[in-house]
Amino acid sequence: MTIPPRIGITLGDPGGIGPEVAAAVLAGAGLPDASYIVFGSRAIFDEALRTRGLPPDSVSAGGVGPAARPDVEFRDPGPAEGSARRGGPDADNGRASFVWFREAVEAARRGEIRALVSGPVSKKAWELAGVRYRGHTEYLESLHPGAIMSFWSETLTVALLSHHLPLREALAAVTRANLASFLRRLDAALARWRPGRRELLVAGLNPHAGEAGLLGREEAETIGPAVEEARRYGVAASGPYPPDVVFRMARGRPDAVAVALYHDQGLIAFKMESFETGVNATLGLPFIRTSPDHGTAFDIAGRGIADPRSMAAAVRLAADLSSSVL
Amino acid sequence: MTIPPRIGITLGDPGGIGPEVAAAVLAGAGLPDASYIVFGSRAIFDEALRTRGLPPDSVSAGGVGPAARPDVEFRDPGPAEGSARRGGPDADNGRASFVWFREAVEAARRGEIRALVSGPVSKKAWELAGVRYRGHTEYLESLHPGAIMSFWSETLTVALLSHHLPLREALAAVTRANLASFLRRLDAALARWRPGRRELLVAGLNPHAGEAGLLGREEAETIGPAVEEARRYGVAASGPYPPDVVFRMARGRPDAVAVALYHDQGLIAFKMESFETGVNATLGLPFIRTSPDHGTAFDIAGRGIADPRSMAAAVRLAADLSSSVL
Repeated sequence: MTIPPRIGITLGDPGGIGPEVAAAVLAGAGLPDASYIVFGSRAIFDEALRTRGLPPDSVSAGGVGPAARPDVEFRDPGPAEGSARRGGPDADNGRASFVWFREAVEAARRGEIRALVSGPVSKKAWELAGVRYRGHTEYLESLHPGAIMSFWSETLTVALLSHHLPLREALAAVTRANLASFLRRLDAALARWRPGRRELLVAGLNPHAGEAGLLGREEAETIGPAVEEARRYGVAASGPYPPDVVFRMARGRPDAVAVALYHDQGLIAFKMESFETGVNATLGLPFIRTSPDHGTAFDIAGRGIADPRSMAAAVRLAADLSSSVL
Repeated sequence: MTIPPRIGITLGDPGGIGPEVAAAVLAGAGLPDASYIVFGSRAIFDEALRTRGLPPDSVSAGGVGPAARPDVEFRDPGPAEGSARRGGPDADNGRASFVWFREAVEAARRGEIRALVSGPVSKKAWELAGVRYRGHTEYLESLHPGAIMSFWSETLTVALLSHHLPLREALAAVTRANLASFLRRLDAALARWRPGRRELLVAGLNPHAGEAGLLGREEAETIGPAVEEARRYGVAASGPYPPDVVFRMARGRPDAVAVALYHDQGLIAFKMESFETGVNATLGLPFIRTSPDHGTAFDIAGRGIADPRSMAAAVRLAADLSSSVL
């Protein structure tokens, strides 16, 4: 049986495009059957509605849009308020977007919401506000060290062994133990949130996956053995495949997840394929967390032109994954 | 004034799909207005025609296909003959494909042909034959150390700072001097072969191009200064841009070339965008060299099913670039 899940949405940085894409999605057609809690300032949200040319009552507690869904609640933990102050990273806005996210995560950890969709924040604004986490994922990792960053679209799913590390540090983190453990955790997370057949297609590190040792040894010495180790634990993993081939292999296969060994290996492929509708999902948590695959876009915020499709896809994926477990 | 160029075509490995895609293109419609010299065995070529279901006289010296172009000549330097022996890398086939390529390169260096289109060879077969070059590009680099590997399609052009190096070595080669020199050589090659407005969009090395130093220092210390240095010499270069953004910036801009700092950074983007019709072009030579963006595909060779579109695109690009200079 499927019970509509309860989903939290954070507005992200008040000066970015987060509030307006959230407003557009919550007031728009095609919202998944779920109940929603918005974490953030109601004043900021109402301003975002005006920015999009939507009437102020198109989203309200007790009624959303023309369908009058009785399922949106607002929660502003205050005192951090934030403002729609435009133009770039701002300490107050950083503080507000962090507090809203932290509150939503706590609600998720309590089980009050099964999934959390986070609007885009500014890492620089968090830094200005004295927040000691680099971003959403780092905060989640501080609570749940096994968190996994993944990217989803209609045609491609990619998971990252590491994410916000300088490339040289990311390469140093490609060890047999790390990769084998990652593959097992990824497989377990998929089993929980998306039951059914799945295969993990693992990228190599070097051109042509090392070309039998001519172009590098990591495939033979590290990556191949890690894949073998995961397979011994029942994980349907294969590879390493040439990095410029593996994402095309995974494309169009709903049961396949391409495993990238560093941030840009996966993100270059994913963004070439699915920029407008891509979704970032954090796995390995006791709840589902998704977010649109774009940043605050300070340069276009407040003009009503931000594309809400990625936010809509993030809400859809959150609903899909969090309802599949019931 | 444009004079039709003379273009050389090598058949590649006799046991791979090179001969049959060359035969399909030379016998097909849409062949650019040029005169052609095929470097390779006529017997292998005729067998490839049969493989494609084409009549043996559809390509002959003094007449090509229905249009009866009087412009195809065959040149088999012998004694290396090769055979259509199938199934994998073979020393005789490696020797033949190397000799054919070497002969074609000599013809290009003498100015007998302005452009050279090379069919796919097997690096392993070259190794078995005792050829001491890893592939086409390495052979060309031994003669012309400034050779540049680039990839072209209808929608995207990518140039690689380095290519067949293990990733760690490729990162070590990202120095200010290397990159600045590369940008100047790339710009000069484009000026020669494709005159007109152009812009080089340079990728960063780290996630988010280092995110102002939070995720790596190479952008500020190495890549940015190299771009500045090239600009002082009049090169229209910009960047560094985030690696997962720069290829989308270049996409759809015929005047833009995305500069990748290592093989897979560029090839992941290019192959996601343009696998079937991509062309590999070597710049920085006294002639143009292109090749299809696929390998020997031993597994499907001889079955008549190989897709000739990339070979056709390679011939088209060779003709475009080599006729534009007159």
